[in-house]
Amino acid sequence: MTKAASEAKSPVNAYGWAARDSSGVLSPFHFTRRANSDDDITVKILYCGICHGDIHLVKNKIWPTLYPTVPGHEIVGQVTRTGKNVTKFRVGDIAGVGCIVGSCGSCDNCKQDLENYCPKMLWTFQGQHEDGTRAFGGYSDNMVVEERYAVLIPNGFALAGTAPLLCAGITVYSPLKHFGLSKSTTHLGVVGLGGLGHMAVKFAKAFGVKVTVVSSSPSKQKEAVERLGADSFLVSHDQEQLEAAMGTMDGIIDTVSSPHPLLPLIGLLKTSGKLILVGAPIQPPELPVFPIIMGRKLIAGSAMGGLKETQEMIDFAAKHNITADVEVVPMDYVNTALDRLDKGDVKYRFVIDVAKTINNHDEASP
Amino acid sequence: MTKAASEAKSPVNAYGWAARDSSGVLSPFHFTRRANSDDDITVKILYCGICHGDIHLVKNKIWPTLYPTVPGHEIVGQVTRTGKNVTKFRVGDIAGVGCIVGSCGSCDNCKQDLENYCPKMLWTFQGQHEDGTRAFGGYSDNMVVEERYAVLIPNGFALAGTAPLLCAGITVYSPLKHFGLSKSTTHLGVVGLGGLGHMAVKFAKAFGVKVTVVSSSPSKQKEAVERLGADSFLVSHDQEQLEAAMGTMDGIIDTVSSPHPLLPLIGLLKTSGKLILVGAPIQPPELPVFPIIMGRKLIAGSAMGGLKETQEMIDFAAKHNITADVEVVPMDYVNTALDRLDKGDVKYRFVIDVAKTINNHDEASP
Repeated sequence: MTKAASEAKSPVNAYGWAARDSSGVLSPFHFTRRANSDDDITVKILYCGICHGDIHLVKNKIWPTLYPTVPGHEIVGQVTRTGKNVTKFRVGDIAGVGCIVGSCGSCDNCKQDLENYCPKMLWTFQGQHEDGTRAFGGYSDNMVVEERYAVLIPNGFALAGTAPLLCAGITVYSPLKHFGLSKSTTHLGVVGLGGLGHMAVKFAKAFGVKVTVVSSSPSKQKEAVERLGADSFLVSHDQEQLEAAMGTMDGIIDTVSSPHPLLPLIGLLKTSGKLILVGAPIQPPELPVFPIIMGRKLIAGSAMGGLKETQEMIDFAAKHNITADVEVVPMDYVNTALDRLDKGDVKYRFVIDVAKTINNHDEASP
Repeated sequence: MTKAASEAKSPVNAYGWAARDSSGVLSPFHFTRRANSDDDITVKILYCGICHGDIHLVKNKIWPTLYPTVPGHEIVGQVTRTGKNVTKFRVGDIAGVGCIVGSCGSCDNCKQDLENYCPKMLWTFQGQHEDGTRAFGGYSDNMVVEERYAVLIPNGFALAGTAPLLCAGITVYSPLKHFGLSKSTTHLGVVGLGGLGHMAVKFAKAFGVKVTVVSSSPSKQKEAVERLGADSFLVSHDQEQLEAAMGTMDGIIDTVSSPHPLLPLIGLLKTSGKLILVGAPIQPPELPVFPIIMGRKLIAGSAMGGLKETQEMIDFAAKHNITADVEVVPMDYVNTALDRLDKGDVKYRFVIDVAKTINNHDEASP
C-alpha cells in the first residue's frame, strides 16, 4: 500500500518531528494515525525518551529506514480515548508504550508473553500496521495503540524519569531476571554507564545484587559509586584492575554498542559466568571460543521484554522508586540532543517534554 | 625441576609412544611414573582412545607442548595396585582415566565437583605433578593416578568402546545436562558427526531427545539416521534445508573444530535457544551479535566434565549400553591413525589396543 493510500484511511491527525533522509535531521511533520479501534487506546503524549537506537533509525544505520520517520519508543502519556473492548485503561490513566506496537499474537513467543521475539513484531517507529497505516513513534503529540502493547503507569510516579523505563529499563531488567542475575548472591558487572547502564545499576541494587561498574571513563567512578550505589568501579583499560577482578563475576550486562573486545570481559567471569549483550555493535566482534570453553561461560543477547514483563518491571520500579536520571529538553532541542547523545554527553537520558513544548504552529511543510 | 631430577624420584617404569617434536611423529619411549602413593592406584592400561586433541598436542598447536610428550586421555585399564587410603577401587577392578589427573581440591570449582574448571587443573598428558614428575598420557603400558581422578567402570562393559567415553563422552554429556538439553521435549542439533558428534547423538537419544544431525557430508545421512538413530539430517551448506529448519531447535551441540560460520547455526535455534561449542576452532569466529540479541540466544562453551559427573555418565552409559563406535588399532599404527583422524577418516574413534600390542622390546633409544 502506498503512503498516500494508507494515510488517507487514518482519521487521527498527529503532529511530530520526523527525519526525512539519512542526514538524520528532524523537522516538524504532520501525519495521521489510524482511527481508535475497539481494542485501542489513544494517548496524549507527555514525555518521550531519546534512545541511542533513535540515532541508528534516523541515520539509516540498521534497518532500511522508511522515511519520513518519527522516532520515539519510550513514551508516557495520558489516555484520552478507549475502544469498547479496552479493559486495562480508563480515560485519564497514564499509559506507557515502548518498542513494540504489534505482534502476531499466536506464535510460540507471543503465547509465552514474549511478543518482543515474535517474528512479526512491529516496531513502534518503523514498518506498518496490518491495516496499512505506517508506524510512527513518540516524538509526536499523540499515539493510537492496541491496549495489549501499552502498560499502566501507577499513580504518583515521576513521569519524565519513567519514560526511559519503557526501553532502557526493560532492556536491562529482562535479562537480569531471565539469566538468573537478580539473586542477592550475584556479583554483576555493568559495562558502560549510559542510559542502559545506569538503569542496570539501579535495578540490580534494588534486587540486592553486588554491582561493579566497568567503564572506560575513570571520571564516572564517583557518580557510579556515590550516587548510583554501585559497590565498586573498574576502569576497562586498566590491566591491573582487570587482573585483580578476574574470575569474580557471576554475570555481566554489557550495554556498550561501540566496538570493544569481549575477551577481557569473559576473563572477569567466574566459571559458568554469563556475559549478556544488550548493546549491539554494528561490526560483529571476535568470539573468544577457547576461553568460553575452558570456563563453561556463555555469551547471550537480550532485546527489550514482553508486555507482561514490562508491566512487572514498571510495578517493581514504582515500588522501589526507580526512575531514569534524565535531562528534560524541549521538542525543538531534539537535533542537538541526538548529537550530544552520540557523543555520550548526557546523564543519562534525554527526555522530551512533548506536551509542553511541541508546537503545532511551528510546522515546516510536510 | 629438570626432567632428569624429577624422573630420578619416580620409581614406576613405564613404556609408551611419544612425540619428540612438533613433527608430531610418535615413536617408542621409556619413561618413569611416580611411585604409587597412599591415595593412588596403578593401572595396567588396556585401551586408549585417540582424540583430535592429541593431534594438537603432538604438533604443538595449542599449548607450548612439553616434549617428549606421551598423548592419551581416554584410558581404560585394570587396577594392579592400590594405596592404603584408596576406597573406590580394588585390585582387578577396571578404572577409567580421562583428561584430568590433578586439581587444587580447594577452589570453588573443585568444591562443586568441577575439577575440570579448576585453575590448577593438571592435564593427563601435559604439565607436571606437585612432586615434580611429568604428566604422561595413556599411549603407554601403565599409569599411576590419584583415585579421585579415576572412575570405576562397571563389570561387563565393552572396554574398547568405553575408552572414548572418558573424553568424547563426557564432553558432550556434561553440556547436555548442564544446559538443560537432556529433557525429552528438547529438539537438539548435533553439528559434526565424528568422535564427539556420534556420542552426542547416542546420549541424546538415550535421554529421549529429538536429534537432528547437521553435517557437511551428505554421505553421513544414512548412517546418522538408520544406525545411530538420529531423527533427521541436515546438510549444512544446503540453503533450502537450512531455511526449512530455521527456528526449530532448542539447542545445538557444535563439535566441529575447523573454522565455520556460526550465523546459520544461530538461525536454526528457537528464541532462547542455546548453541554449545565443544570443539574449539583455533581462529576465533565472528560473533553475530544482532541475531543473538533479537532472539535472546546464547553461545556457550563446555569442556569435559568433573569426576563426579564423569562417573554418573559412565553409569548412565552402562545402563543404556552406550559405547563409542571404534576402530581398534595396534600401538604401532598410531601415526597412521593420527593422520587418518586429521582427515576425518574414521568411524568414529580410533582406540589403541594397548595391552595386546604395546611391545616393550621394539624400543628406539629414548
